[in-house]
Amino acid sequence: MALALKEAEHALRLSPPNPSVGAVIVRDGRVIARGFTQQVGGPHAEIMALRAAAAAGESVEGATVYVTLEPCSHYGRTPPCAKALIEAKVGRVVAALGDPNPQVCGRGLAMLEAAGIPTRSGVLADAAQAMNAGFLSRMTRGLPWVRMKTAVTLDGRTALADGRSKWITGEAARADGQYWRARAGAVVTGIGTVLADDPQMNVRLPDQVRQPLRVVVDAHYRMPPEAAMLHTPGGAVIVAGAALETEEARARTEALRRAGADILTLPDRVDSSRVDLRALLIELAAREVNDVHLEAGARLSGAFLNAGLVDELIVYQAPCLFGEGAGPAAVEPPASPGLAHRWHVVSLETIGKDIRIICRRN
Amino acid sequence: MALALKEAEHALRLSPPNPSVGAVIVRDGRVIARGFTQQVGGPHAEIMALRAAAAAGESVEGATVYVTLEPCSHYGRTPPCAKALIEAKVGRVVAALGDPNPQVCGRGLAMLEAAGIPTRSGVLADAAQAMNAGFLSRMTRGLPWVRMKTAVTLDGRTALADGRSKWITGEAARADGQYWRARAGAVVTGIGTVLADDPQMNVRLPDQVRQPLRVVVDAHYRMPPEAAMLHTPGGAVIVAGAALETEEARARTEALRRAGADILTLPDRVDSSRVDLRALLIELAAREVNDVHLEAGARLSGAFLNAGLVDELIVYQAPCLFGEGAGPAAVEPPASPGLAHRWHVVSLETIGKDIRIICRRN
Repeated sequence: MALALKEAEHALRLSPPNPSVGAVIVRDGRVIARGFTQQVGGPHAEIMALRAAAAAGESVEGATVYVTLEPCSHYGRTPPCAKALIEAKVGRVVAALGDPNPQVCGRGLAMLEAAGIPTRSGVLADAAQAMNAGFLSRMTRGLPWVRMKTAVTLDGRTALADGRSKWITGEAARADGQYWRARAGAVVTGIGTVLADDPQMNVRLPDQVRQPLRVVVDAHYRMPPEAAMLHTPGGAVIVAGAALETEEARARTEALRRAGADILTLPDRVDSSRVDLRALLIELAAREVNDVHLEAGARLSGAFLNAGLVDELIVYQAPCLFGEGAGPAAVEPPASPGLAHRWHVVSLETIGKDIRIICRRN
Repeated sequence: MALALKEAEHALRLSPPNPSVGAVIVRDGRVIARGFTQQVGGPHAEIMALRAAAAAGESVEGATVYVTLEPCSHYGRTPPCAKALIEAKVGRVVAALGDPNPQVCGRGLAMLEAAGIPTRSGVLADAAQAMNAGFLSRMTRGLPWVRMKTAVTLDGRTALADGRSKWITGEAARADGQYWRARAGAVVTGIGTVLADDPQMNVRLPDQVRQPLRVVVDAHYRMPPEAAMLHTPGGAVIVAGAALETEEARARTEALRRAGADILTLPDRVDSSRVDLRALLIELAAREVNDVHLEAGARLSGAFLNAGLVDELIVYQAPCLFGEGAGPAAVEPPASPGLAHRWHVVSLETIGKDIRIICRRN
């Protein structure tokens, strides 16, 4: 199963909105084939492994299939994998995790059992769960998994007092950041960042075949039609604003549409100066976004945090001190130090000369 | 040698101002005795190991002695260890590190060689060096090794906006902080911290036998004679101020002396509002302080950093966000993000639910 999880890693940047799944086929104690989920519409991990076995002239009859998620049982974009496994006459199927969405396609193991193939589930489940946190979140909560990324100094500064932030972290940390962005279904930023930095928000990795949606939270549609994001290769650009019924707002959204943006009108919050972020996430889930990569300034990051909508923090820390400058998130301060919400550190490592801390909501 | 380094760890809180040294005696591939440096005036590691061998009825004739620092060759508070090893007729001596101070006592290996005992030096030298950074710094630079300790949130806050800071980190991190304090020859803080928190600055570990000096940097002698530090068990209290020749300053220093403080008058800096921190460190080295544990507020920490006097940072990070509040060090901001002085991360681990980052000056 550990090998199957390794296979699944190859799918992380490729398979969304499908889950990233790996499969390994073992016969007589020997690995005879491996596979991982391809791009959407392409074969799933089990089919890739069956094909690899066939290509190698290996028989899978009676073999054990290790797969990191329960094989699907329905006709979606591809035929059901459970059916293919039955037809291939495999001997046993071990899944890391049951499918979280039994209504739609969670009958894979039952279908196998009914065909006389013994199954087991729950092997290395935690690792498999972590790998598909986004897909599982969308299936079980109807919300994407939200990762907030920030890059700070040891004294928590994201920029000098005058706003300059290039570069706080080194090349290795920035490349790692690109990798997380590449796993996401959508990269979300705020209009403040667009106006200040005019970022492209695309994935610039040579072997990347899909691009996440680029979402700008922009209540008043202040996004300039000439913003770099609208004129560089990458995922579709969505400008998420509030329902402003002014002539001016209509003109601005029209200009943005002409520049290629997709306008998303969200319910506004009480004071109509902010959009409803939960409504945005529900809309992104409806568009099959599993993972949201939030890469924004202090204000929008703080708004997501205050609303309890952030599931994971990825904090890159450069081992230096600025003494002053902006912080990563304008969160509501806790009533006392002991009452601050504590995150759970799940990963701590050096990336190049910098530090990467990954925390999950407790 | 790895075992000898393990032994030396037992000496870290005990041996200062002597270096923390471990020794292991091996005969016929078998460890027959171990030892580590005792409190000042007590036996060094080699003598402890020789005694342990004798107590166990083991002969050390022809045995190999592994020691983490070159055996001493002079009559100091104790007779020379090299002489004891020669008299014990050991077969070979392997040192991790040569003594950094050959004028005073660095002839130990030569003395052994002259007696026909083969020696070797440089085995696991880096680890041995790190363990005695303070002693080596004092011997080679005439300055203590300065460790700056701070406890911050992920967004670099040491307190809420109203100053409350209890408790940012959890019990395990605070206990770890006590351990580092316990290794130090002096704990240094600023008058700001004394006036705000009235700390005891002592080591509160049940098995601690020595207490570091407690030093308050206090240019104008504003320390209250009733400060907790002056009325709790612990190391001697030194109030380090500037040469202020006013009647009032004389009265204040007199009151502090009566309360048990040792007044240290340092050259003042140009504007006479700050003391010369390098002069303070030179004075502490003269008092045999190997390691300074700097545990101060943003202003004094920043002053030490700006003067280039900090060798190591120990940053405890609680996985939470405050949104606003004080930073750890009022350092001079760099001219650009890329020009910030980068520290070198030497250790990164979780301590309880918190994070500990140790960095050294590059």
